[in-house]
Amino acid sequence: MANPVLPSSGVLSPLGLDSVRLTAGFWGDRAALNRDVTMVHCQEWMEREGWIGNFRGQRPRRGREFSDSEIYKLLEGMAWADHPALPELAETVGRAQEGDGYLNTRWSGNRYTDFEWGHELYCYGHLIQAGVARLRTHGEDRLTEIAVRAADHVCRRFMDTAETCGHPVVEMALVELYRATGAERYLEMARRFVERRGRPALGDIPFGRAYFQDDLPVRQAQVFRGHVVRALYLASGVVDVAVETGDEELLKAVEAQWERTLARRTHLTGGMGSRHADESYGEDFELPPDRAYNETCASIASIMLAHRLLLATGDVRYADVAERTMYNMLATGAALDGRSFFYCNPLHVRVAAEPPQGVNHAAEGGLRSQWFDVSCCPNNIARTLASLGAYVAAADSGGVRIHHHTPAEIRHGELALRVETGYPWSGGVTVRVLEDGAGAVSLRVPFWAGGATLTAGSGPARPVAPGYAVAEGPWRAGDEIRLELPMEPRWTYPDRRVDALRGCAAVERGPLVYCAESVGDEPPLAHLTVRAPAPPVEVAPSEDGVDSGGPAGGGAVELEVAAVLAEPRGDGWPYGPEPDKVSGGADTALRLVPYHRWGNRGPATMRVWLPVAE
Amino acid sequence: MANPVLPSSGVLSPLGLDSVRLTAGFWGDRAALNRDVTMVHCQEWMEREGWIGNFRGQRPRRGREFSDSEIYKLLEGMAWADHPALPELAETVGRAQEGDGYLNTRWSGNRYTDFEWGHELYCYGHLIQAGVARLRTHGEDRLTEIAVRAADHVCRRFMDTAETCGHPVVEMALVELYRATGAERYLEMARRFVERRGRPALGDIPFGRAYFQDDLPVRQAQVFRGHVVRALYLASGVVDVAVETGDEELLKAVEAQWERTLARRTHLTGGMGSRHADESYGEDFELPPDRAYNETCASIASIMLAHRLLLATGDVRYADVAERTMYNMLATGAALDGRSFFYCNPLHVRVAAEPPQGVNHAAEGGLRSQWFDVSCCPNNIARTLASLGAYVAAADSGGVRIHHHTPAEIRHGELALRVETGYPWSGGVTVRVLEDGAGAVSLRVPFWAGGATLTAGSGPARPVAPGYAVAEGPWRAGDEIRLELPMEPRWTYPDRRVDALRGCAAVERGPLVYCAESVGDEPPLAHLTVRAPAPPVEVAPSEDGVDSGGPAGGGAVELEVAAVLAEPRGDGWPYGPEPDKVSGGADTALRLVPYHRWGNRGPATMRVWLPVAE
Repeated sequence: MANPVLPSSGVLSPLGLDSVRLTAGFWGDRAALNRDVTMVHCQEWMEREGWIGNFRGQRPRRGREFSDSEIYKLLEGMAWADHPALPELAETVGRAQEGDGYLNTRWSGNRYTDFEWGHELYCYGHLIQAGVARLRTHGEDRLTEIAVRAADHVCRRFMDTAETCGHPVVEMALVELYRATGAERYLEMARRFVERRGRPALGDIPFGRAYFQDDLPVRQAQVFRGHVVRALYLASGVVDVAVETGDEELLKAVEAQWERTLARRTHLTGGMGSRHADESYGEDFELPPDRAYNETCASIASIMLAHRLLLATGDVRYADVAERTMYNMLATGAALDGRSFFYCNPLHVRVAAEPPQGVNHAAEGGLRSQWFDVSCCPNNIARTLASLGAYVAAADSGGVRIHHHTPAEIRHGELALRVETGYPWSGGVTVRVLEDGAGAVSLRVPFWAGGATLTAGSGPARPVAPGYAVAEGPWRAGDEIRLELPMEPRWTYPDRRVDALRGCAAVERGPLVYCAESVGDEPPLAHLTVRAPAPPVEVAPSEDGVDSGGPAGGGAVELEVAAVLAEPRGDGWPYGPEPDKVSGGADTALRLVPYHRWGNRGPATMRVWLPVAE
Repeated sequence: MANPVLPSSGVLSPLGLDSVRLTAGFWGDRAALNRDVTMVHCQEWMEREGWIGNFRGQRPRRGREFSDSEIYKLLEGMAWADHPALPELAETVGRAQEGDGYLNTRWSGNRYTDFEWGHELYCYGHLIQAGVARLRTHGEDRLTEIAVRAADHVCRRFMDTAETCGHPVVEMALVELYRATGAERYLEMARRFVERRGRPALGDIPFGRAYFQDDLPVRQAQVFRGHVVRALYLASGVVDVAVETGDEELLKAVEAQWERTLARRTHLTGGMGSRHADESYGEDFELPPDRAYNETCASIASIMLAHRLLLATGDVRYADVAERTMYNMLATGAALDGRSFFYCNPLHVRVAAEPPQGVNHAAEGGLRSQWFDVSCCPNNIARTLASLGAYVAAADSGGVRIHHHTPAEIRHGELALRVETGYPWSGGVTVRVLEDGAGAVSLRVPFWAGGATLTAGSGPARPVAPGYAVAEGPWRAGDEIRLELPMEPRWTYPDRRVDALRGCAAVERGPLVYCAESVGDEPPLAHLTVRAPAPPVEVAPSEDGVDSGGPAGGGAVELEVAAVLAEPRGDGWPYGPEPDKVSGGADTALRLVPYHRWGNRGPATMRVWLPVAE
């Protein structure tokens, strides 16, 4: 099964890339662009920056201490995509592996001297994930051999110590290798890494131990905290360990942490992370739109975790959150041409900044960058889009559950289905039955989709509530199942404890968050207030050089909302004895674009949360 | 003249510590505590941490690369306070000076190899400031000799290069040494450092060149930007150079940068700095209360700059801003016992955190810390409180202008005055004439003090507008001048471009900003909204272990405002289809305390900006 996550138990069993084939559409188009453009781009940049050369013994070594992992993430993507460049790149990597399986271009000769920042186990984690991907899509070869030797080295070296890595990921990688090979030492090693953490297992650092989740044992934590990618990679590994060891208490602990994190530490886009200084969550309700960190990698980690929790519990809410994160974070990470990337994903940009050319030394920037000093996000996008088909549907004992509505062909048991849809632009989802057979077909109805209907075969349309809309078989080739999701744009308001959003509203439509984007800041977004709750109106995409096209099923939808454009009072001391209310000003229509499409038109200002006119 | 800033021209001439003696009162009490407690505390911690030991050749060297400067700042404070520990500490410092005047315990043997981060010229700057302080309060001695040798080394080494330091301060130090000695090479060296910057003179760094103000020449900048302390130390040096060289264009450039910074990049407390990651300003109107950085050192730098601009231009607004910063930032920096310190000064704290014991490795923390890894703030407070008398009054051709109303004795020309006041708790300021003589006495009337009156001698009270209230002489011993400032508490609202403060109001009284402080977060501040503009009511300070005492003239004033305490809706996805308005809830009175007194009662939550009930 060509699947990044393949639990041996749980409510749902995922369908892998051999069961789900994305076809032309929102995600299928992106997966194709990823394979043809983004992966090539990533490999070229890693050659240019010398990160691949490190494996050839280049001196001086180049790149940050974790740059090996970038090659491994690309290898994982190449494995999912069956990319022809994989064997040669794997061969290059293998040259740097030592006799006992040790493999790291930065720390060779000085092994395991810095667990807090060294990232050696982190790099193994990504190598092992690449190896598992290759094993499941191709079978044993040089890459799988390298990965297994590294994993065996880890088990020998760390099984009976109290050590762990400052950056989690090896935990979930080891569980997956256990699942792929049946060798129990990998599971036991992962379990021990999980249980060690927070005893504590690492030294203190200026950011504090919460930064790498070593402040308290994972069973005792109440919420995700510290560095977001670390927190979510760890939690994913914890779910994997819990599922494979049947540890209900451990699973419940992660579920509870996820609940509170969702309620108090998640941005509207599904993004997580509010602090730049340590790339961390910040506190409950600390959700600033302008300084939202929302690392692209963190959103990928969030999708990975939600997927695991969905499979383990069958709770459809995890798929709702994964969808939000996919459409508003993962889809935002890469430009529409697949060659530049966001690292941070704020919800408010005040300055229409010129894009940095070449390598961006900072994670920030108003436009996407071709490459970064710390360039984790492009390769993470690459491996995720290459395996995205495996997140689309899952099986239960009665049939198939389709969680993400995108054009695809799905086969499982007797079911052979073709999904046709213009989603997320339009709300109709048609599932065509390709062959006679039995089995229930369940379609996820998102939580915002009150008023949805389902039509199965020649039956009448019947209302379906958020959750799953179930169409029971048996089926004949040519049967149709039709889900209609209402796609009226809607105003959304924040919990009043989110201080940074007081007095603002945002617009959503279907799974998409919208934003005002102002190229060159004309009109100036700081001078606009909106007349919520006057209904947003759908309009054709503006002709501005950005492909207006969606895939099959229709083009992108843009919106307009009623707004007031009013000059601020003049500059001076910005605090005074009277409330600074808008008075006068000109009525205008403010165009909104899908958040994931912003930043493709040139330097612009942007805001998701719009001040409401009083 | 015992004065940290002594320009040779300008509209006003400052009165130094030999002309202004602080007596028991708000600032006099703090200056005494500073001399008796804080300076001793600083010296003890720097011995404990080994930063003084570095000068004795201790190996390995301890502390950060700029730790030498900390000893110099304390030496400056000791010089102003005529502290008996100075000579021995200066002797220790002198042992590390090399034959050609070079002095740095970190870079000796490896000189000037890292201008971006090495801080060598920065350290000299603080050494030279200490030397000038000693020269003006005591005359030549070992400390002045060390400082002059270092300054001469700097002039020889850097006069004809294009180099400068990643952290400004040497510029203003050299100008002051020129003022103290008359040796023009120091002024010329400072001028060249100023003109070199931004050509650029330094390498690129991940934070970008704006971090150390090397992004463009100082004459071309529009606003202060980048690292706040660096920006304000540089601007102070630029004003000094402009004044001594008669460069009006240069002075105007800084004035314009200050104007825009005040209008768009300054928090209500006078604090500056909105980003933790690089301790920088952030963008226009990026003023988050919770993540406000507002480094204590930045506020000291802001006071230094405003004082220089006041002297150069005579514009009383600079004194207004300095006062705001003194009462709400400088006074906040140290605990009431003088033994612990804030590095960051946010305007909103959500979590009642335990204070770190001993050295705080981070700049953050809900309570003050005894010491920091980067412990710039305690010594900066020490030197500033030790010289604060020199900021209180200045002379013009006709007499004396009193800018800061605090108990003091002031002598200048024929004028001998005693200021008696309970300010900032009460609004009456009495100036008693101690000897017969002539000369105008001008008292600053703050911009918020509409309705103030002045009574001179037996004349009637007459209304005086914000600016200066002038009482002309001649005087006889025993005459009284009486200024009455209205002290009604007032609501203050933000410019609507300050996104992070939308829907909130704050309370001020006189020069003080107030805040809600909730020990243990009981009542929970997130559940409270206030009924602005219902007038705040003055109440006696709560009996809670904190000295309620002000100095002569009355105790601290606390306030109460009408508020509503209402539970939030339950947790869940924190964004929904309806505005989350307060409904129901219980009317209550919310106590407000002066911001500078918060954090003295134990772990607490705090907020300056209070959500207004709709």
